[in-house]
Amino acid sequence: MNALPKSVAPPLRLLLGPGPSPVDPRVLDALSRPTLGHLDPAFLAIMDEIRDMLRAVLGTENELTFPMSGTGSAGMETCLVNTLEPGDRVLVGVNGVFGARMAEVARRAGARVSTAEVEWGRPVTADVLREAARGESFKALCVVHAETSTGALTDVAALRPVADELGALLVVDCVTSLGGLPVELDAWGVDAAYSGTQKCLSCPPGLSPVSLSARAQAGLAARKHPVQSWYLDLSLVGSYWGGERAYHHTAPINMLYGLHEALRIALEEGLATRYARHASVARSLAARLEAMGLELLVAPEHRLAPLTSVRVPAGVDEARVRRFLLERHAIEIGGGLGPLKGAIWRIGLMGSGATEANAERVSTALSEALAEQGRSVGSPD
Amino acid sequence: MNALPKSVAPPLRLLLGPGPSPVDPRVLDALSRPTLGHLDPAFLAIMDEIRDMLRAVLGTENELTFPMSGTGSAGMETCLVNTLEPGDRVLVGVNGVFGARMAEVARRAGARVSTAEVEWGRPVTADVLREAARGESFKALCVVHAETSTGALTDVAALRPVADELGALLVVDCVTSLGGLPVELDAWGVDAAYSGTQKCLSCPPGLSPVSLSARAQAGLAARKHPVQSWYLDLSLVGSYWGGERAYHHTAPINMLYGLHEALRIALEEGLATRYARHASVARSLAARLEAMGLELLVAPEHRLAPLTSVRVPAGVDEARVRRFLLERHAIEIGGGLGPLKGAIWRIGLMGSGATEANAERVSTALSEALAEQGRSVGSPD
Repeated sequence: MNALPKSVAPPLRLLLGPGPSPVDPRVLDALSRPTLGHLDPAFLAIMDEIRDMLRAVLGTENELTFPMSGTGSAGMETCLVNTLEPGDRVLVGVNGVFGARMAEVARRAGARVSTAEVEWGRPVTADVLREAARGESFKALCVVHAETSTGALTDVAALRPVADELGALLVVDCVTSLGGLPVELDAWGVDAAYSGTQKCLSCPPGLSPVSLSARAQAGLAARKHPVQSWYLDLSLVGSYWGGERAYHHTAPINMLYGLHEALRIALEEGLATRYARHASVARSLAARLEAMGLELLVAPEHRLAPLTSVRVPAGVDEARVRRFLLERHAIEIGGGLGPLKGAIWRIGLMGSGATEANAERVSTALSEALAEQGRSVGSPD
Repeated sequence: MNALPKSVAPPLRLLLGPGPSPVDPRVLDALSRPTLGHLDPAFLAIMDEIRDMLRAVLGTENELTFPMSGTGSAGMETCLVNTLEPGDRVLVGVNGVFGARMAEVARRAGARVSTAEVEWGRPVTADVLREAARGESFKALCVVHAETSTGALTDVAALRPVADELGALLVVDCVTSLGGLPVELDAWGVDAAYSGTQKCLSCPPGLSPVSLSARAQAGLAARKHPVQSWYLDLSLVGSYWGGERAYHHTAPINMLYGLHEALRIALEEGLATRYARHASVARSLAARLEAMGLELLVAPEHRLAPLTSVRVPAGVDEARVRRFLLERHAIEIGGGLGPLKGAIWRIGLMGSGATEANAERVSTALSEALAEQGRSVGSPD
């Protein structure tokens, strides 16, 4: 190769997109502590603490609760390949990219997939699922709690009765909700859930917390076919995280230090306080954006606190706006995905990024970016 | 939950087991730099640098060369699920845990697997593969370059003619060799290879470099069935690492900073110098251990420089020896796996851990540990 590149010197960005979110310096510091062996007794103790803290933020007593060694999409695949066997019927509520991804992952696991399609930006409801189910039985009902591609919140607790009618396990994507919105797996009757670390936990990406109910775990033990993924096989991974400590793969030690610290920060603040902070800051952001004459994609009652989707006004070059924010203000926000590409911006106020000051900074910067394109907008203040 | 745990305070260990290896402070420091978004232009530039440096250590010009967002076992699964389709025939050389794991992962991918079984501690040879193949055709021939469970080195270049006879892609595990032993994918004619970061690259675990030849990449484009794993689908992951930069999953940003720095360190030293250092230190360790009257598992001509396997003398409590090293000397070494459990110790002098001082420290400590069990041994000096 040519000359060796210089050591990485990442510019400081204010991460206000759909994730990763701003990482607390305490978490960055934890990442750089001395690496331990994955079977060192000192590390096994850290693993147990991570599991306890994860149970607290997930609202569960589930024994099988730990972070998978991959990002949120690995957690999605984990939940699906472990609960489904070839030929199983699955019903997926699709109201954005991540619902569609669940359907695709389930198909690749050999399941027969039905989808309940919902307009993007709207929540998945019991009615639409019942209609799509046509009175038939399913092995699993899959929904996204907080759809990161649109900013819409689905009421998961309201879907447990539907899952019961279908005879289905309830599988839930909590990637963008965990740590920023109440997640109550046990109270809601969720059977399998996964999340990511780089949203409202404000930890760098790289791990995916998963949790399985006792019922889902029993199903795992009674499988007829091996889980198609060896890397994501929860029976094997669970033997490492659980009592036996059997070697499966080498855990990402330093990333786990980071998650440990991120969970400590969330629990120190207190979950109720943390959720209230996300909600309050999101209301402030919405008010500022609407005062500028901008329109939000999601109706107020279904908006995600951690992520706000804003419609791009007609005639505005949306990519140029994002470039302006990044280059002039060092602020990252997200664009739309799939059918919403070019149509929305996604602004995340997540984890340590969910502050009133950031709501103000991003709306002021957005106002300037629009003015730079000759769009006169109302004041965000 | 009960009281919040304290922030992690990992004890300092000298990691001389089968991995993770000692991490250079420069790598730990890189981990804690500010997190960027996974589509930030500044991050995309870092990704390109990582790819270039990976190609250099892998000895390849392969376009499809990048780290997967999981540990080495995820890389193994990546190479197998992307090259194999259901019903494909695979021949796996099995001379340890990781060959056996390749066979299991290939089975779970729906392949029809034949194995060429070799005594653990011995290399996989062209002869044993030819015998197991019985003149039939195979889609892939899989071997482990450096078998971490035994410390045996297989001559990969010598197996390309066999792969040609079988009409097979050559798939190679380079987990414990990369950065510590010459790896020359192009010169050897390897079609798919994977590695880990926590061995001779001295980076924490969490990423798995993979590389596919043009031929394997063409096979990927011509598949009849989708890759069973969405997370590990190289067509999709390649669109993110390649020209299109299409969002697939959120890359583990900070871990990638660490890998970037680890690769810089390896290339700064120079690969030839680095391999010579590993070889020289391994010879010194072997001489010390044999001077103590200990017997090594692998014959001298097949020994891995990065990892030395030592037979546990009859009557010695091997777990107590490892505990003694950890508690009295803060040195981690590994035990045996599978049929070698209880029968060997595995001592890794990998990456920044491959020093003459460490060879001396671990052999002296081992000598003390044996004396503590009343075993008089020769002096390691």
